[in-house]
Amino acid sequence: MLNFSLMGAGRIGKMHAGIIDAHPDCKIKFIYDINKDFVNELSSKYAATVAASSDEALASDDIDAVLIASATPTHTEFITKGSGAGKAIFCEKPIDLDINKVNECREAIKNTTVPIQIGFNRRFDNSHRKLQQAKVANEIGKLEMLIITSRDPEPPGIDYLKAAGGFFRDTTIHDFDLTRFILGDDPVVQISAFGDALFDKNSQQVKDLDTAMFILKSKKGVLIHINNSRRAVYGYDQRVEVFGSKGMVISNNQTPTSLERYTNTSTNEKEPIHFFFIERYEQAYRDQFNEFVKCVEDKTKPLVGFEDGRNALIIANAAYQSFESGKVIDIKF
Amino acid sequence: MLNFSLMGAGRIGKMHAGIIDAHPDCKIKFIYDINKDFVNELSSKYAATVAASSDEALASDDIDAVLIASATPTHTEFITKGSGAGKAIFCEKPIDLDINKVNECREAIKNTTVPIQIGFNRRFDNSHRKLQQAKVANEIGKLEMLIITSRDPEPPGIDYLKAAGGFFRDTTIHDFDLTRFILGDDPVVQISAFGDALFDKNSQQVKDLDTAMFILKSKKGVLIHINNSRRAVYGYDQRVEVFGSKGMVISNNQTPTSLERYTNTSTNEKEPIHFFFIERYEQAYRDQFNEFVKCVEDKTKPLVGFEDGRNALIIANAAYQSFESGKVIDIKF
Amino acid sequence: MLNFSLMGAGRIGKMHAGIIDAHPDCKIKFIYDINKDFVNELSSKYAATVAASSDEALASDDIDAVLIASATPTHTEFITKGSGAGKAIFCEKPIDLDINKVNECREAIKNTTVPIQIGFNRRFDNSHRKLQQAKVANEIGKLEMLIITSRDPEPPGIDYLKAAGGFFRDTTIHDFDLTRFILGDDPVVQISAFGDALFDKNSQQVKDLDTAMFILKSKKGVLIHINNSRRAVYGYDQRVEVFGSKGMVISNNQTPTSLERYTNTSTNEKEPIHFFFIERYEQAYRDQFNEFVKCVEDKTKPLVGFEDGRNALIIANAAYQSFESGKVIDIKF
Amino acid sequence: MLNFSLMGAGRIGKMHAGIIDAHPDCKIKFIYDINKDFVNELSSKYAATVAASSDEALASDDIDAVLIASATPTHTEFITKGSGAGKAIFCEKPIDLDINKVNECREAIKNTTVPIQIGFNRRFDNSHRKLQQAKVANEIGKLEMLIITSRDPEPPGIDYLKAAGGFFRDTTIHDFDLTRFILGDDPVVQISAFGDALFDKNSQQVKDLDTAMFILKSKKGVLIHINNSRRAVYGYDQRVEVFGSKGMVISNNQTPTSLERYTNTSTNEKEPIHFFFIERYEQAYRDQFNEFVKCVEDKTKPLVGFEDGRNALIIANAAYQSFESGKVIDIKF
Repeated sequence: MLNFSLMGAGRIGKMHAGIIDAHPDCKIKFIYDINKDFVNELSSKYAATVAASSDEALASDDIDAVLIASATPTHTEFITKGSGAGKAIFCEKPIDLDINKVNECREAIKNTTVPIQIGFNRRFDNSHRKLQQAKVANEIGKLEMLIITSRDPEPPGIDYLKAAGGFFRDTTIHDFDLTRFILGDDPVVQISAFGDALFDKNSQQVKDLDTAMFILKSKKGVLIHINNSRRAVYGYDQRVEVFGSKGMVISNNQTPTSLERYTNTSTNEKEPIHFFFIERYEQAYRDQFNEFVKCVEDKTKPLVGFEDGRNALIIANAAYQSFESGKVIDIKF
Repeated sequence: MLNFSLMGAGRIGKMHAGIIDAHPDCKIKFIYDINKDFVNELSSKYAATVAASSDEALASDDIDAVLIASATPTHTEFITKGSGAGKAIFCEKPIDLDINKVNECREAIKNTTVPIQIGFNRRFDNSHRKLQQAKVANEIGKLEMLIITSRDPEPPGIDYLKAAGGFFRDTTIHDFDLTRFILGDDPVVQISAFGDALFDKNSQQVKDLDTAMFILKSKKGVLIHINNSRRAVYGYDQRVEVFGSKGMVISNNQTPTSLERYTNTSTNEKEPIHFFFIERYEQAYRDQFNEFVKCVEDKTKPLVGFEDGRNALIIANAAYQSFESGKVIDIKF
Repeated sequence: MLNFSLMGAGRIGKMHAGIIDAHPDCKIKFIYDINKDFVNELSSKYAATVAASSDEALASDDIDAVLIASATPTHTEFITKGSGAGKAIFCEKPIDLDINKVNECREAIKNTTVPIQIGFNRRFDNSHRKLQQAKVANEIGKLEMLIITSRDPEPPGIDYLKAAGGFFRDTTIHDFDLTRFILGDDPVVQISAFGDALFDKNSQQVKDLDTAMFILKSKKGVLIHINNSRRAVYGYDQRVEVFGSKGMVISNNQTPTSLERYTNTSTNEKEPIHFFFIERYEQAYRDQFNEFVKCVEDKTKPLVGFEDGRNALIIANAAYQSFESGKVIDIKF
Repeated sequence: MLNFSLMGAGRIGKMHAGIIDAHPDCKIKFIYDINKDFVNELSSKYAATVAASSDEALASDDIDAVLIASATPTHTEFITKGSGAGKAIFCEKPIDLDINKVNECREAIKNTTVPIQIGFNRRFDNSHRKLQQAKVANEIGKLEMLIITSRDPEPPGIDYLKAAGGFFRDTTIHDFDLTRFILGDDPVVQISAFGDALFDKNSQQVKDLDTAMFILKSKKGVLIHINNSRRAVYGYDQRVEVFGSKGMVISNNQTPTSLERYTNTSTNEKEPIHFFFIERYEQAYRDQFNEFVKCVEDKTKPLVGFEDGRNALIIANAAYQSFESGKVIDIKF
């Protein structure tokens, strides 16, 4: 049995609480949050103890692992202290929005041997994963193009936007990680980024973007396109396409049911695709946690580690450089 | 160059006129129709001669072949006279609605050597044909089930209904022939037929049906299902499914374009499928004629002959027997 | 908290045990099975008590409800005794293979007020249910045709076949129930049945069937087609199509992922559909149980009751009469 | 009746000859080509006269219109002379590979009133055109993203490559024009281009590219992505996607038949899509010619004029500038 401290009892913390609790080998021992209402409610639901301090939650002898789902600026501190106390760490993305803080944390944890997993959930989606496996198995031959379409159903509120660190670091960072996952040992070396705030007043107000497009190039010459929007009225649009010398594999969108409608004006009409990440990546969230538990139990290395979190942020930063300068930027990890 | 007489200048005659005219090796020499306006208009369009009589059209030394697209009751006479005069015959389905007249005609032409092709156009549709080839090539293994969905977009007028000979002989006859085409040398031996006039007032008035379902069984035990309707609001629904020990092949519906729409209420929405047989089977009509011309030029046997026309009618008659008696009927050819 | 006795610790009993255990309001108190190994293993897994006798399991004061997943011949006895003891009953399909035993049970329980739900899981599948709702909401206008394709991936072993009561009572019974679910208050009144043992040696040996087709007609004239096979190499083929005056709705097959492959010989290639009912109807099994628990808690009538189980069996019996006589059979409930 | 001179009797000239000949209002009067075998064969097939010189073909009193399908370097001369002689001009794309020659031609014809149409056939494809109409009709709301996937089935030979003017001017130019067609009065203002010769030895040898990706931005902020390959093993991949505030419309790929295969390893498998442009854009080639004839007969302006040809070339040139400099380039028309 693995005992957990859960850092953060907000929206994403609640989701993780449900996942930990449902795992037959895991128990939530402590929950920590600065919001007393949130932490009391969640602790009572899962019969967990409200941690008196973050330090208690991170270093108690009663726990084996820490799941960090608190506000982004707390991530590096919690990673450092938790791993320093010998606890296995699962940390939601991003590690931090500031590469300097990430680098300091990296330095601080360089000798740790506990598993540290970053929450890039899409790597665990069955469809995306099978696409990646098809690429690895050489099914499409030599990879030449990768195309990721990733659009949210609706923009977040202005408070979220203010804290999110910008569209590329908050949203596209998932696609940058997915790109790295699919490319494997072939690193991206260049990026060109475009974007605009075309429709969302909140994004316009905080000088963020709501629409973006990217081209990246890998060392071996693979061309990668990513496009993002903060609003797709038909649902959470998540498509991945790999194209190579022997063919193409697409991980396509998914609808909640397999219904098709035929009327006098249309045929083959399906329902809107899954509304958002909670619905679309339910299996992925569960499986990334199962995988983390396995790493802890088997003392193996996580599939998505601290370096993956750092590298995705470096690409996001290069994307901003390109967007601001109007130039193709060389990416240095 | 093959010179044709065209018997019949109505809707289906006009369509065939266009097909003959477009063929580089063919010319319309005579057109015959009892409706003077129709025949004059069509003859002038294709620079053909208005035949003074059906006999002139059928026996003139100037012609090589006769395309019969006149009213059904004239078919057997025109087949007999035309083939008697040594002309190759292409005759629209059905040969006749009365099996006795068909049998008399069969007797009359038993010694003819000219090609006689019946207009079961669906055998020439590229998709249905590839499905049949997949079956022949043993792609699906041993055939076990065949399912045909065949629904018109809208009911015909009452005048058409009065002359059409009933739903099974007019419409399902195409599906009976398609069944025989796909089964190959395994004849159907039993049939059970259901039907009703559920919505079409004209069908109700003339005691015809607008909705029907059939099960047939072949000698080797293959089960066949056919369903028909006179009104599908989304277009001309034409699907064929073969199922066997190694898999399934479906010849699915077709839309005029490859457009897909995504809105806040639906995804993957395509346009209505092709409206009716003229649009859906354009390629099939053209290719059945090309095939006929090839038979005449190469002196080979047509792919769909007089016996096919007769056998489809025999199945339709057995279907009526089943429908009226509430029993499974043994089919005798 | 609802305490359950689980009758039967075989394959389907194990599946239900997992579902009961996962429900936050439910607990397995007793498990009964004549197979000591099965019952010991399952009881230990869920910390349940091995019932000393079926009577203890059915009548203990410690339990509120009985889930019957034992061999079919025990169903009526367990229903009668359990409901007689005031326990809510969830019973797997079929109630029994013998209509006389079903009628005796019906008589015995006629005054009971406890909820009795029969395990026709497909009614709870999200896609099939939305199709039924679309019909109820008049989306397709007046229903005219219903087509159910229902094919297992592979035949069961001979022991299963010997006890199963025949293809129509074991397998098609689900489709008969689905038909009744979709038709609502319009009862089926006629049936014509065809079948054969085309490929499965075990089915041939026990004089059962492996391939079947049916046409049913409802009081209002709706035509229904069902086709069944015991072996579809591409997976568990489960399709439902409703066709009416204003359009068509299809509940189509489902693949585990949304992957599509494109090669030099094919495009749009998806994975095989779900292998069998455990995978395909996972959500439906869970939701039918949730619904049952709700009925018990809210003291409401189950969505699928004893009469539904009996009526489906009556249709299956009529199907056998038709199959054996070669006649269309009138169905009397 | 419109009498045509056809300039060029090579592959694309032959295709156009067939289209002119099939048009009921058109006749090929002269054919000109420096290759005597080609011109003799084609002239004899269509009973046309072999033009003694290009001047005869362009200026004969017997002709009304000129279809230019000769080598690219001859286009501007033939446009200038033909239109100077008062003939309507249909010219295959591109006008020329050198913007200076295009500008000289533009100056030379600035006072002409004859219709001059450029062969950007894709604007006439029924699916792409309906997508554009959906955008114009505001079906997707405000356009925010446009994504074009355009991949050839196999690379051309080295001789073609040497004369083609580079991947962007030869191939992507179609996508640049399609972009302009869909954007309507909102001009593209920026471009970022990436490319490589990843697999084609001939492209490598002549320092051309076989794989490319682009991002363009319009004045109103619309982001456009284009990706190209010279080799897609599954056929001629031609997809267009428009995304906006109210939804998305996709013009998807097309297969020759509507066959779907199901086996023990795959489902929904379709045939490879159309092999190449001759098959995929057959309807578009025919309709662009019909449209041209209508312009001539009705004395209206062509839907795709000289300026469209010039503007597409200007974008292609900017794309090369971006590719070579690693910078985002401002496009000036």
